[in-house]
Amino acid sequence: MGQKPITFLRQVTALCLYPELLNDNKFPDDAKQKAMRILQACGGNSIGSYSASQGIEIIRQDVAKYIETRDGGIRSNPDDIYLSTGASDSIVTMLKLLVAGQGNARTGVMIPIPQYPLYSAALAELGAVQVNYYLDEENCWALDITELRRALEEARKHCNPKVLCIINPGNPTGQVQSRKCIEDVIRFAAEENLFLMADEVYQDNVYAKGCAFHSFKKVLFEMGPKYSDVVELASFHSTSKGFMGECGFRGGYMEVVNMDPAVKQQLTKLVSVRLCPPVPGQALLDVVVNPPQPGDPSYKEFIAEKQAVLGNLAEKARLTEEILNQAPGIQCNPVQGAMYSFPRIEMPERAIKLAQAEGQAPDMFFCMKLLEETGICVVPGSGFGQREGTHHFRMTILPPTEKLKILLERLKDFHQKFVQEYS
Amino acid sequence: MGQKPITFLRQVTALCLYPELLNDNKFPDDAKQKAMRILQACGGNSIGSYSASQGIEIIRQDVAKYIETRDGGIRSNPDDIYLSTGASDSIVTMLKLLVAGQGNARTGVMIPIPQYPLYSAALAELGAVQVNYYLDEENCWALDITELRRALEEARKHCNPKVLCIINPGNPTGQVQSRKCIEDVIRFAAEENLFLMADEVYQDNVYAKGCAFHSFKKVLFEMGPKYSDVVELASFHSTSKGFMGECGFRGGYMEVVNMDPAVKQQLTKLVSVRLCPPVPGQALLDVVVNPPQPGDPSYKEFIAEKQAVLGNLAEKARLTEEILNQAPGIQCNPVQGAMYSFPRIEMPERAIKLAQAEGQAPDMFFCMKLLEETGICVVPGSGFGQREGTHHFRMTILPPTEKLKILLERLKDFHQKFVQEYS
Repeated sequence: MGQKPITFLRQVTALCLYPELLNDNKFPDDAKQKAMRILQACGGNSIGSYSASQGIEIIRQDVAKYIETRDGGIRSNPDDIYLSTGASDSIVTMLKLLVAGQGNARTGVMIPIPQYPLYSAALAELGAVQVNYYLDEENCWALDITELRRALEEARKHCNPKVLCIINPGNPTGQVQSRKCIEDVIRFAAEENLFLMADEVYQDNVYAKGCAFHSFKKVLFEMGPKYSDVVELASFHSTSKGFMGECGFRGGYMEVVNMDPAVKQQLTKLVSVRLCPPVPGQALLDVVVNPPQPGDPSYKEFIAEKQAVLGNLAEKARLTEEILNQAPGIQCNPVQGAMYSFPRIEMPERAIKLAQAEGQAPDMFFCMKLLEETGICVVPGSGFGQREGTHHFRMTILPPTEKLKILLERLKDFHQKFVQEYS
Repeated sequence: MGQKPITFLRQVTALCLYPELLNDNKFPDDAKQKAMRILQACGGNSIGSYSASQGIEIIRQDVAKYIETRDGGIRSNPDDIYLSTGASDSIVTMLKLLVAGQGNARTGVMIPIPQYPLYSAALAELGAVQVNYYLDEENCWALDITELRRALEEARKHCNPKVLCIINPGNPTGQVQSRKCIEDVIRFAAEENLFLMADEVYQDNVYAKGCAFHSFKKVLFEMGPKYSDVVELASFHSTSKGFMGECGFRGGYMEVVNMDPAVKQQLTKLVSVRLCPPVPGQALLDVVVNPPQPGDPSYKEFIAEKQAVLGNLAEKARLTEEILNQAPGIQCNPVQGAMYSFPRIEMPERAIKLAQAEGQAPDMFFCMKLLEETGICVVPGSGFGQREGTHHFRMTILPPTEKLKILLERLKDFHQKFVQEYS
């Protein structure tokens, strides 16, 4: 999508891979120092060695410090950090750990609708019961506690709901949860004895004025021991999002809070089956959580590149909302964060009927026509879940600004033509 | 363990990570060409992009060509190749795909004893039935069809055995299967309608005179269409073993043969949940399967480094067997291949009773005493499985030769002392 890798991330990881380059004066000293520190923590000073299954210890320490800084000093314990093969890996691992039982005692896992399909796929794979709670589209995809309660009560009739998954900032819906909403969710989890899984991989991707990322961990601890002593939480982060966008490295971490030591032992055992997360990804993560500081040779370039990526994404988030909402039959909530918009589209009756005749979801029918006629590929809302009778698509805001503008204009025109053609 | 990374592997991957280096004249041209070819196959020419879930297409093509060359021209289809996050990943994925049913209809999976504990762990996790077949220690850990048949018939009383796992060369037992034995196994699998999982990650690690690696795929196709049209097979390989030893990259591939297209579609869906294997590991794998050729600038150094590693391992395999067999109470089969020896040790009655009193397996008791008194860490045989009443440990042959000699001498002396002390 034209987004350039951050130079410093690539310098440090290349130095780790090929330490001969430590003698090369083309690499800045701070990159060399970081690489040497990582290599010293690797078995035989090589990134090709297996690491501990939970991840390299100094990297877990760096992650813990990063979380403490992010959360205004609230303590993070390196023993509670598990490095991972991207966030998907640790999300699936955590679900595996939590899902049990048979029949009506089967574990229910509450997930938002619309959701990122990793959740539905993993739950199907594990034979868990997927418990849907609907985000409030009229209210910028906010999470509504009344709806959470309805979903939970309904689910208790046929399964044992034990886990509540939150995606904040939202994927595919792009909302950023307010602090108050997070407090409400934590209170709800405490009352109902639910394990909280907070998918916070878009924590660096917040664009809208008045919005800020609040980590579940921070809010939990600021609510005092009544909550911070009891609520069990796992939070997930990744090197694939943010300003990094290094998806191919498959790096990430999870922090677990208040987990029973006996359960944690099982978690450690579970992750050991796959030996260790990819070490190049661990090294990259270390640079993300322990970046150049003011005064370091690479600081200025690093910050400039980081801000350019994030500033650019903010501009594209704004553009996407603005242009899509110009179309009469498209309604697009503000893209407050993450990397997607999930606009609602008007679907003429005849298009719906034609789709049904072809055995297709109506928004799939729309997306296929769009692809065929314009070459634009977006994902039907039905793949993420949506309220019965509504239709959406998900698109990323990632293409370069000039391309994105053209794409949005074409999409808008196509929708108009589509509505006319099938009305 | 002192094994140096192969220069060319690290050069190409470092170039992929930091393409600025493509202008650096310290890198040989063939490394640059390989890196450019890999980058051109990556989304946005960046190793930081997600790849297809099955792996980058040209790398799958290179793997297929590598297999064809290895197997004397027998066709390999890139569509049957799935790149992976190390072999463990694809082994677990394949088991997940194959395991089903409840109660007496639960899938049984036949595994060798002693085994690599990934198998028992994955089967426990999936709730599959582990069906043990014992390797023949008296016959250099050979696989015995009579024993396979016994295990299968026994298992059919309480589960539905559908999968037969083979580890060749053996881990932890270091045997290399003869061609005849592989033919027998294939005939058995065809008769009994078993899916063959061939763990061939040590295929480059064969040391003993008269031994050679025969891939299950090659033998299957050379047995003619009566077998090659029907037997379903998955074979696993990894960048963590061989001459590469690049465990930290988590690279590998699996080839599936004769898989039903509808099942294969499910397999592709299953791997897509975790998005893609780490791209640096995919790049590394590409260099392994598509190495420098005679005449290329890096050829000589590459071959010299590769042969040094393999020659060294062969020498250490021989040393290990030789020195351990000098001890009166230790019996060690030849280390024909892989990276381990699995010697049998005499355990005095009193040591066995003391161990039992402490709730420990007797060989765990021995290993702990060894660790405490000498600092040498080996793994008790009970972790891999062994015939009732026998005791073993597993040790790698990886330490540098001079260290390995000292270690083996100390181990030998310690065992002698141990036997005296507890007799």
